Amino acid sequence: MSAPRLKHFGWGRQGEGLSAEEEAFVLARAEARFGTKLQVSATAPPLDEIKLAAPRVTAPASLSFATSDHYDRAAHTFGKSYPDLARGLARDYASAPDVVAYPRNEAEVAAVLDWAGGADATVTPFGGGSSVCGGVEPKRNGHKGAATIDLRAMGKVKEVDKTSRAALIEGGTYGPALEAQLKPHGLTLRHFPQSFEYSTLGGWIATRGGGHFATLYTHIDDFVESLRVVTPKGIMESRRLPGSGAGPSPDRMMIGSEGIFGIITQAWMRLQARPAFRGGGAVRFKDFFTAARAVRAISQAGLYPSNCRILDSAEAYNTGAADGSVAIMVLAFESADHDVTPWMKRALECCADHGGTPEAAGAGAHREGAAGVWRNAFIRMPYAMERLILRGVINDTFETSITWDRFEQFHDAIHAATGNAILEATGRKGQVTCRFTHVYPDGPAPYFTFHALGEPGNLGAQWHAIKSAALDAVIESGGTVTHHHAVGRDHRPWYDRQRPPLFAEALRAAKKALDPQGLLNPGVLIDPA
Amino acid sequence: MSAPRLKHFGWGRQGEGLSAEEEAFVLARAEARFGTKLQVSATAPPLDEIKLAAPRVTAPASLSFATSDHYDRAAHTFGKSYPDLARGLARDYASAPDVVAYPRNEAEVAAVLDWAGGADATVTPFGGGSSVCGGVEPKRNGHKGAATIDLRAMGKVKEVDKTSRAALIEGGTYGPALEAQLKPHGLTLRHFPQSFEYSTLGGWIATRGGGHFATLYTHIDDFVESLRVVTPKGIMESRRLPGSGAGPSPDRMMIGSEGIFGIITQAWMRLQARPAFRGGGAVRFKDFFTAARAVRAISQAGLYPSNCRILDSAEAYNTGAADGSVAIMVLAFESADHDVTPWMKRALECCADHGGTPEAAGAGAHREGAAGVWRNAFIRMPYAMERLILRGVINDTFETSITWDRFEQFHDAIHAATGNAILEATGRKGQVTCRFTHVYPDGPAPYFTFHALGEPGNLGAQWHAIKSAALDAVIESGGTVTHHHAVGRDHRPWYDRQRPPLFAEALRAAKKALDPQGLLNPGVLIDPA
Repeated sequence: MSAPRLKHFGWGRQGEGLSAEEEAFVLARAEARFGTKLQVSATAPPLDEIKLAAPRVTAPASLSFATSDHYDRAAHTFGKSYPDLARGLARDYASAPDVVAYPRNEAEVAAVLDWAGGADATVTPFGGGSSVCGGVEPKRNGHKGAATIDLRAMGKVKEVDKTSRAALIEGGTYGPALEAQLKPHGLTLRHFPQSFEYSTLGGWIATRGGGHFATLYTHIDDFVESLRVVTPKGIMESRRLPGSGAGPSPDRMMIGSEGIFGIITQAWMRLQARPAFRGGGAVRFKDFFTAARAVRAISQAGLYPSNCRILDSAEAYNTGAADGSVAIMVLAFESADHDVTPWMKRALECCADHGGTPEAAGAGAHREGAAGVWRNAFIRMPYAMERLILRGVINDTFETSITWDRFEQFHDAIHAATGNAILEATGRKGQVTCRFTHVYPDGPAPYFTFHALGEPGNLGAQWHAIKSAALDAVIESGGTVTHHHAVGRDHRPWYDRQRPPLFAEALRAAKKALDPQGLLNPGVLIDPA
Repeated sequence: MSAPRLKHFGWGRQGEGLSAEEEAFVLARAEARFGTKLQVSATAPPLDEIKLAAPRVTAPASLSFATSDHYDRAAHTFGKSYPDLARGLARDYASAPDVVAYPRNEAEVAAVLDWAGGADATVTPFGGGSSVCGGVEPKRNGHKGAATIDLRAMGKVKEVDKTSRAALIEGGTYGPALEAQLKPHGLTLRHFPQSFEYSTLGGWIATRGGGHFATLYTHIDDFVESLRVVTPKGIMESRRLPGSGAGPSPDRMMIGSEGIFGIITQAWMRLQARPAFRGGGAVRFKDFFTAARAVRAISQAGLYPSNCRILDSAEAYNTGAADGSVAIMVLAFESADHDVTPWMKRALECCADHGGTPEAAGAGAHREGAAGVWRNAFIRMPYAMERLILRGVINDTFETSITWDRFEQFHDAIHAATGNAILEATGRKGQVTCRFTHVYPDGPAPYFTFHALGEPGNLGAQWHAIKSAALDAVIESGGTVTHHHAVGRDHRPWYDRQRPPLFAEALRAAKKALDPQGLLNPGVLIDPA
């Protein structure tokens, strides 16, 4: 690859980050929030300051695509969560894998699994490495060593079926490469998570990633036509079918399995024609709950906008989309087939029923005005965290879902629990904001962001206290521990309270059947039997 | 229940069946098809001609809702498939359960499972009994006895959440009772399979039933918000969530599990507001493949019609919807929220692009003209089979799905294989027709009907030869053994060729964890480990 290599600390590739202007904007907002100047108290760890234990296992020469080089091990130690950054600042890379393999095909994936079985090494699948829940951090869990399989060398669109609008795509394909290979065919997957540039198809499927569409097709799940997975017991492949009623779906067992059963090497994915018609814009509401009622009306109307996200007034202010006095809805329709004006018109009527005032509307509006400002801030967000943490700022997000009947009470309980936890953990008031990322006829997916000013050297522990209180409230109030970020290891304690105990038994039994040595991602989702 | 009891042979309740006029129509079509008068050669079995073995196990007095009465055992021997009828004619009720239990609540369901575990009796869940694939026929499989749990006494809508448009509904609720209880709330599940009157919510979920909507929401799967299932190891209940990314979906493991893991006692279901706006009608096409290309255009346009089904010319003729020279599309849009004219207009443009000519259009058109004629024939179809078999007619249906790129070749291969098998098995030409029941952006769900004139006394074997050849062709050509009829025991040999072998291992392991004695529906989907 000719692009600069991925950072071993922080988001993206070496040399990438916030511009001076973006950093000044983010910093000014943070200083205003905490009412104090922020001083740099830590530095990102240079590669040569990171000390790694000698590898406990090494790959044989036959695995020529595997390495135990210092950079590769360091760069595969963490995902991109706040506690990952906190440990990075402390130069704590103790979880580094012993071996990193970059297989170029399925046979090489299988060869790594075979070797790992003999060498007693755990195996961690790694896509773009953007996990924010401890999903790609290697663990030995009593085994001798730990290997990471990085799928980046399996990044091809292998076959395109224009008639059925589907393509066979390798699991290690990064978002931009995937879209670039589909574009000449006039097709698109339209899966644009915030992590789009640094995440892969296999990762999206393994974690049930949430994407572009705010309604209807929200999760990658619905776009999977068939899967091919390499497990320690062999290859599992499902048929290409538009729909089936033949027993429980084999794909649905693999979707969301977070690497505990096997490695997704390729998938037939359902695609879209590239949109040619667009309508959209921002709509202002007096407050978040009023905006939410308009969202409910739209989501129950069968209009299926591509975007129908709302920001509370504080979040709209923080991202520069509004002045802090109003909630904002970002509304958009798109189609490759027909003018969307009747759809947009009816959705704006639903907004007007709840006092919503359009800021601007028309083709192209989704990239302009409040909607466009928010969109840019959203995409650059991950770069801000690695700069703010150097100044002692704790900020993170978590996402959930709840039915409409419980939403307002749910929102208030979580908002209060998180705000109180910030005060208790840091001795200083912070901020909690909320937006909707996806919406369903039966309820929204609220996405919370929190900001706190912590104590350098103690940031990880303070973060943990806040996040734990927030997730306690989510689980106690009936929500899901994650709507699209996944479970990984960080969310396990709350997932264990959410997941039916007998389903854990079934998962454990299935894992034992497919991964008898328990080498794949031990501790993710379930513990061994 | 004050309604007449269910028949022990044939469709529906005692006293129900084709009118003389309907029977004459069906008979005339059949006689024209085979070019011969049809003579009655068999009689339906009166209850007192059915001999049952003495029960191998009986329920204790504490299970006051269980019985070993002759009628109850006979009426729970079969589903409603053609071979079930053929064995009925032969008075072969050897599969009758020893005990039929009608639990009134979850505790009574659990009590039956507990008793069956001690008595070494297999357990067959029974909803409306409309299985057409051997899904409700009791088997002992080496165990001492066989019990059927009929859920009909658990038929309540327990709670309605109008805000989220969802309801908590018991698993044994029949279609009409379900809709009747939702109607006062202005809500509807809109799940209307052909078996609607004689099937239950739990059955729809256990078999991944296909319903009202021809596009978008085709399977019951998407309407399940949460499930409660009684397994031999205890109760498994999922959270009510509009969407979640927390591990593989627990519900998706139960949906389509056909009773092998447990008994679905209740579910929170996503509902619709009752439609207030409608548009639709029939569209004529010169042939089936041309109509199919119009269906593909509509299904890829993002319009989501509630109906978008096509009939080939022979099927349109057989049901009285057309004269045999044209293929027919039944097209409809419905909405509780908005006028659907722009949607219908664009869909008709897609039809016109392929030479489609609307027969009639407008509100109410879905119940009139060719569309209405077909709809009535469709609903009355199951009553015809039990009359025709008495005259030696073999007729049955099977349904599958395939991606668009392979559809035409697939259709021709199956059509030819089935037609040839009819000739080979019966020595006489029969007929094979096709329609689409559901369509997806990546492919259709073709539904085949075949008609043959068989030899009285040998009908079951002839049917088996024809159906086997048809399903061989389906599996060899890349389709699914079932799109929405389920697998049961009849489709097992082909399901075994379709299902990934490692997924079978995972299912077997999960079953062992939830049903260690292997008592629930043995032989359905998988064999024991």
